[in-house]
Amino acid sequence: MATKKGERYWVGFDLGGTKMMAVVYDERFAPVSRARKKTKASEGAGVVLQRIAKLIKQCLDKADVAPQAVAGIGIGCPGPLDLDAGVIISAPNLGFSNVGIKAMLEKEFKCPVILANDVDIGLYGEYVAGGAQGSRCAVGLFPGTGLGGGCVYEGMIIRGRKNSCFEIGHIQVLPDGPLCGCGRRGCLEAVSSRLAVSAAAALAGMRGEAPNLVDAAGMDLQNIRSGALGTAIEAGDTVVEKIVREAARWIGVGVATAVNLMLPDIVVLGGGMVEAMPELILEEVSRSARSRVMPGFRDQYEVVTAKLGDDAGVRGAAAWAQTTVKGAKR
Amino acid sequence: MATKKGERYWVGFDLGGTKMMAVVYDERFAPVSRARKKTKASEGAGVVLQRIAKLIKQCLDKADVAPQAVAGIGIGCPGPLDLDAGVIISAPNLGFSNVGIKAMLEKEFKCPVILANDVDIGLYGEYVAGGAQGSRCAVGLFPGTGLGGGCVYEGMIIRGRKNSCFEIGHIQVLPDGPLCGCGRRGCLEAVSSRLAVSAAAALAGMRGEAPNLVDAAGMDLQNIRSGALGTAIEAGDTVVEKIVREAARWIGVGVATAVNLMLPDIVVLGGGMVEAMPELILEEVSRSARSRVMPGFRDQYEVVTAKLGDDAGVRGAAAWAQTTVKGAKR
Repeated sequence: MATKKGERYWVGFDLGGTKMMAVVYDERFAPVSRARKKTKASEGAGVVLQRIAKLIKQCLDKADVAPQAVAGIGIGCPGPLDLDAGVIISAPNLGFSNVGIKAMLEKEFKCPVILANDVDIGLYGEYVAGGAQGSRCAVGLFPGTGLGGGCVYEGMIIRGRKNSCFEIGHIQVLPDGPLCGCGRRGCLEAVSSRLAVSAAAALAGMRGEAPNLVDAAGMDLQNIRSGALGTAIEAGDTVVEKIVREAARWIGVGVATAVNLMLPDIVVLGGGMVEAMPELILEEVSRSARSRVMPGFRDQYEVVTAKLGDDAGVRGAAAWAQTTVKGAKR
Repeated sequence: MATKKGERYWVGFDLGGTKMMAVVYDERFAPVSRARKKTKASEGAGVVLQRIAKLIKQCLDKADVAPQAVAGIGIGCPGPLDLDAGVIISAPNLGFSNVGIKAMLEKEFKCPVILANDVDIGLYGEYVAGGAQGSRCAVGLFPGTGLGGGCVYEGMIIRGRKNSCFEIGHIQVLPDGPLCGCGRRGCLEAVSSRLAVSAAAALAGMRGEAPNLVDAAGMDLQNIRSGALGTAIEAGDTVVEKIVREAARWIGVGVATAVNLMLPDIVVLGGGMVEAMPELILEEVSRSARSRVMPGFRDQYEVVTAKLGDDAGVRGAAAWAQTTVKGAKR
C-alpha cells in the first residue's frame, strides 16, 4: 500500500518486557501495517532503543509511509515514567532506568512522541475502540503478573503530576494480608494477580487436588499460565476453579472501590486470565462488586471484558498520541 | 454597602440538616454579606424551599444587592442529587425526596442556579481559597456523622454521569468488619466516623476508662461530640486518645487508597473532629497513609487540614457556580 498524498499517519507502539509491537494507522485509525519482535531487554537500553526505532521504520516501510507523513508516535511502556519528559524512570521488567525514549525517537523521526503507561493506553484503546467505547468514565483492571489499573475520565487519562497513577493493584484490601511484591501486605495484587492464582493452584497440585493442571503444566509457576488454568478447570479441577473465583471475588472488591470513588459507566477487565476464562471471571467479579458498591450506584455501571486483546495497547497509544498532539487533552 | 454599578455578585448557599447559611460574594469573591438560620427540615420541603429563598433575599438586602445583579447561585446539599437537573433525589438528613431546588430558585431569582454535593463544594472551597489552593488534584476526607469524600481534578469536581461520587466512606477496608449505616460491613465510615469514635468512647466510659469524658459529656452519643472528645484527651483520658488514633489510622487507609488511585498533590482533612484535634489526627493519618501508599508516591502528596471551617461550603458553592456558569468546566 502506498502513502496517499497529504495523508497523515499515527504510529502506536507497545513496549513489553518480552516483546514489542508497532502498528501504523491512517487518519481514520485503520491499521495499515504491523510489525513485532522480541524486546531483548537484557541487551540494554541502548540496544533496545535502536531496535524500537528499527521496528517502527520497518513498519513504515511495509506500509510505504514516509517518515515525514507521520503525525505522531505513541509509546506504551511499563513504568514508573516521567510522562511529560518522556523518560522511563525505571522499568523493572526491562531493567531500564532513566531512559529518554521520547527525546531519542523525536530526534529520529522528527515528529511528536508521547510516552504513556502501558496499562493506561491499553484502557484508552478499549475506550476509543473496544469494550469501553463511548463511556464518560471507564476504569480498567488487568490482572496478570501483577494487577494493572487505569481510569479514563471524560476523555482524559487520569494521571499524577508527573507519573501515571490508578495503582489499583496496590490498594490495601486485607489488613495483615499476604506479602505483596511491592513490600507491603494485603494489596489487591497479592490476592488476585495471575501469579497469586498460579501459586495457589500449584499448592493445590502439590496436595493432589489439581491432577489435570499438574498433568498439563506441572508445578512450575512459570508454566502455570492462564490457558493451563482454564483448561484444568474445564477438565474438572474444581479446586482450581475455586481458586480463580476467590481471586475474582477480590478483584470485585477492587472494582467496588473504584466504583464507589469514580462511579464509572464501564469497568473493563482484561489480560490473559480474563481472556482464558471470561465468563467465570466476569460473573464472579460482578457479583462481588455488586454486593460492595453503594446501593444507589448499583445500576449505574457495567462490568465488561476487554475486546481488543493485544491490539489495545498499540491502538490506544496511537489514539492517545493524536489526542495529546492535537492539544485537546493531555 | 451599596451595589456598585455594573458589579456582579455570586451567592453561595450551604443547606445542612440543622442549619443553612448564605453568603453574597462580589466578583473578587470578597464576602459582602452573610446570613444563617435553622433549616427546620421537619416542616417539609415546601416550607424549607421558601426559607431558603427568604434567606437569600435577606442576605442580598443586607448587602444592598439587587437580584438582577446576581450572576449565579451555588447550592451545596447532602444527596444523592441529580446534579444537572438540580434535584435533591433524596436527603435522609432532611427527609426530602425529589425536590427540584434548582428550578424553584431559578424561577425566583432569574439567574443560573447550580446544585452540588455538600462535601464536594466544601472541598472545592478549600481548593479555590483554603488548604488545597493551587493543587492539580485534591482529595478531601471529612469525618463527621458519616465520612464524606470528594475529589477536585484539574479544576473539575469528579462526578458520576448524574450523581456525585467519591464515596470514600463506603469503600471496604475491613472484610467482615463492623456494620455500616449503609447496610454493608467494614466500610471506612463504620470504623472511622466521629459517630464510630463516640460510640467506642462511650463504651470506654462504661468501663470506667474515660472519666473525664463521662464527667463532661456523659454517655449519650448525642452529647459526645468532637469538642468533648478533644477536651477529654487533654484532661488525660488516654483511652479516648487511643480510640481517636485508631480511627485516624483507618482514615489513613482511605487516604492511601485515594493516593494510590488518584495521586493527588493535596489531601485535605476537615470536619468537626479534625478541627477539634488537628495535630493528633493529622499525625496519625499521615503516618498510616505513608506506610500504605506506593513507595514511589510517598513524596508526591501532602496531607493538610482544612482552613476555611464553616465557610468552605458557601465559598465553594459560589465559586463552583461561577466556574459552571462560565462554562469552562462543569
